[in-house]
Amino acid sequence: MKDDLTSSVTIFVTTAVCVVALIQRKQRRTQNSYHTQHPSNGSSLSQPWLSKQDVLQLRTKHFLKSVSVSYANTGGLMILKGNGSRLYDERGTSYLDTRNNVCHVGHCNPRVVDAVSRQLAELNTNTRYLHPTVIRLAQRLADKCPDPLQVVVFVNSGSEANDLALRLARAYTKSKNTIVVEGAYHGHTLAVLEVSPYKYQHSKEFDLQLQEEETTKGPVTTPGPHIWQVPCPDMYRQRHNTGKEYANHVQDGCDYFQRKGESTGAIIMEGGMSVGGVILPSDDFVRDSVTAVRNHGGVYIADEVQTGFGRLGSSFWAFQHGNHGIVPDIVTVGKPFGNGMSLGAVVTTPEIAKAFDSMGVEYFNTFGGNPVAAAAGMAMFDVLEDEKLQEHALQIGGYLKKRFWEIQTERLHQDLIGDIRGSGLFLGIDIVESSTLRTPAAAKTSFICSRLKQQYNILTSIDGLYDNVLVIKPPMVFSKEDADFL
Amino acid sequence: MKDDLTSSVTIFVTTAVCVVALIQRKQRRTQNSYHTQHPSNGSSLSQPWLSKQDVLQLRTKHFLKSVSVSYANTGGLMILKGNGSRLYDERGTSYLDTRNNVCHVGHCNPRVVDAVSRQLAELNTNTRYLHPTVIRLAQRLADKCPDPLQVVVFVNSGSEANDLALRLARAYTKSKNTIVVEGAYHGHTLAVLEVSPYKYQHSKEFDLQLQEEETTKGPVTTPGPHIWQVPCPDMYRQRHNTGKEYANHVQDGCDYFQRKGESTGAIIMEGGMSVGGVILPSDDFVRDSVTAVRNHGGVYIADEVQTGFGRLGSSFWAFQHGNHGIVPDIVTVGKPFGNGMSLGAVVTTPEIAKAFDSMGVEYFNTFGGNPVAAAAGMAMFDVLEDEKLQEHALQIGGYLKKRFWEIQTERLHQDLIGDIRGSGLFLGIDIVESSTLRTPAAAKTSFICSRLKQQYNILTSIDGLYDNVLVIKPPMVFSKEDADFL
Repeated sequence: MKDDLTSSVTIFVTTAVCVVALIQRKQRRTQNSYHTQHPSNGSSLSQPWLSKQDVLQLRTKHFLKSVSVSYANTGGLMILKGNGSRLYDERGTSYLDTRNNVCHVGHCNPRVVDAVSRQLAELNTNTRYLHPTVIRLAQRLADKCPDPLQVVVFVNSGSEANDLALRLARAYTKSKNTIVVEGAYHGHTLAVLEVSPYKYQHSKEFDLQLQEEETTKGPVTTPGPHIWQVPCPDMYRQRHNTGKEYANHVQDGCDYFQRKGESTGAIIMEGGMSVGGVILPSDDFVRDSVTAVRNHGGVYIADEVQTGFGRLGSSFWAFQHGNHGIVPDIVTVGKPFGNGMSLGAVVTTPEIAKAFDSMGVEYFNTFGGNPVAAAAGMAMFDVLEDEKLQEHALQIGGYLKKRFWEIQTERLHQDLIGDIRGSGLFLGIDIVESSTLRTPAAAKTSFICSRLKQQYNILTSIDGLYDNVLVIKPPMVFSKEDADFL
Repeated sequence: MKDDLTSSVTIFVTTAVCVVALIQRKQRRTQNSYHTQHPSNGSSLSQPWLSKQDVLQLRTKHFLKSVSVSYANTGGLMILKGNGSRLYDERGTSYLDTRNNVCHVGHCNPRVVDAVSRQLAELNTNTRYLHPTVIRLAQRLADKCPDPLQVVVFVNSGSEANDLALRLARAYTKSKNTIVVEGAYHGHTLAVLEVSPYKYQHSKEFDLQLQEEETTKGPVTTPGPHIWQVPCPDMYRQRHNTGKEYANHVQDGCDYFQRKGESTGAIIMEGGMSVGGVILPSDDFVRDSVTAVRNHGGVYIADEVQTGFGRLGSSFWAFQHGNHGIVPDIVTVGKPFGNGMSLGAVVTTPEIAKAFDSMGVEYFNTFGGNPVAAAAGMAMFDVLEDEKLQEHALQIGGYLKKRFWEIQTERLHQDLIGDIRGSGLFLGIDIVESSTLRTPAAAKTSFICSRLKQQYNILTSIDGLYDNVLVIKPPMVFSKEDADFL
């Protein structure tokens, strides 16, 4: 009897405890679902729910107008949730995201969320202290780069990475002279804007000066005599027939600096020109350009901020695309590295590192490579490798290209789709008025982009020198079903 | 009987379910405690545990030497956990952290961890989409600033904030001419380094040019004719007796630019000069300097990266310290804003914002002000306000100053402690060879800093033009017990 009682009490108590535990769990879930609907984080009463109209109104007061809103012509999009290749607005409408190349292994990838959340609760401090995850990430990134690229500096963004890359190059070469590619964008800091034609050609911030070179488009201007701009090596809307001819413009730049008795400092180039309209430079362009620059004392900075980490499918880095065999002196990464967490890095050679170290000052970056960002980077790498997303990108990208060409041919869209280019999940569809004349059709591209959003809930982006390239650069988990839907 | 059976089965099943749930919970906890000991996040086999020696060795290969290690002379510190004002190394040794002004409301503050973790699982994307938390944070930051500061631009770091501040100032004033304060540090991008005497005076990266001014310390050099450097308005180791006299150097700069037929673009100044050795500029210095700059067409950029968010106790921003009543044109924030998450911002006036918007280009910052960083900022604000940490800083800071003066007087340390200055939890102890001569004692300061770490497990930092100022700028949750222990 006593045993029975004990047993009953035990069962009762255990059950009660369990029920309480379950209720607590339920409550936590309810709280979470509240936050799903009201992503104010509910951490205080100071964060009430805001409607889309409220947000728009507050933005008018508190944001720069130059911080733009996507799809502003239809009131913008209030996005509150993300999952894989999908984004959800305040009504729960699901959008296929073909434009976010930041959340590389998918929006809110659970492994990244988990790793970051755990590290957040453990420690978040700076690189002046030693930390295993931080150094492991440096090692892992270095291991992905060909020799002799092995020194890593962590920063917060692609802009900071390119800024530091210029600093390293200048410390090493003692020259500020930089060769830049038409249409390129490398970031938003003052120094980086000076090497970003996409910005300096359109902003009144720069006193542009005439460059000693005329292209078929007319005279070229740059932010100063230390910047030499070369044409974008576009083989579709071509100014030249070979990469070699394009590379002659780089040689011209080196010669120009030499005539002034100066060496060349650097060429900065995206492995795949993204804002330029998904241009993958040809082997001869890369080889001849970099050779010319190196012959004049300069270094090659490969900007992998948009294209790194397997996006092209064919290779881990876009600078490895093709067969030119050229290894950059400095590589910069950003966007996808932390899957949305602020994380960037510069990878360089021991020789350049040594030159920078000899300058005599500490390099300190408060947040750069903190353990939380590093946990994000490690988890991104884990998912990328475990789920073989580089191979996946190659496969889906190939499938997408094939399907797009089919659409172009079968549906008689020859006079709309001029070119389909790129590799892996870095694709560009060049929209034209006429495929014979290859006239860029900016208005049509904008119309297609709007229609894709309004009618099919598909988010795309537009780039290119003439705003006529529909760019497909989705999270790498973009599936075959996503591709079919697109 | 049937009822009894049903009841028994129900109890059994419920119990079983609960036991399984409890076991699962236990397992999760065990996993977590594993990660506590091995903070490699264990998310893959590619992250095995590393010893301190391993980390040091890998750093030699993969890090710049100029990315320095704290306490390197004793092998550095491997820090794996943080909590409030405490840091813990790989052996579990606890250190009192008096130097981290980034984890503002405490290392791993649970409310911040919770808010960030929840947002991470919901969404992390950019400011081209509308998001309530992001705009609320902009509003909240703007509300903390005096009128007409109301336009907020989110960035990733203090460096990015100061870089953008220069960009805004230049767009507005059409002038690159900048007045900077001796010993100031504003960040690591190329443009910001040019206005950071703490860096450019010590790095071989800059071709320094002689400035048309000689101080008692000898000729002044700057990175170019557009930079005018003025002495640090230090009233302890004084060159002048009044802030007004120090401000004359600013006037000299404006006059120098004017003689060249140019206007002044900006003065950039920390509300409290941190690296300079905890110097709070006097009212007359601020008033006269800013007036001179404004009379010559320039703007006042207040760098609050180190000192913002109530650290001084007396005021929310260091630029509000004193009674000068001057409101900056641009304010920059960083370090403490996201409590360790990469988050910075620029706050400016609608007039300057309008000038920038008229430049004609989009400003886009991939990570700046994403919902996750914004959640961190909101939670930091919540804790700061709910726990009244500004008032707390004032109280603890006052207590610390009183105790330090007592130590100086009672323990006959007059010839060691020359000055104790600052406000709230932004304090500097000026270590001297002789209090009469006020000779800086850098070696003794370094010795004290090392001893505090080795004997008492207290982490402090050293700053000042002569490396002789022990700086106390701990997380704001620094308690009276922490103060007593220190």
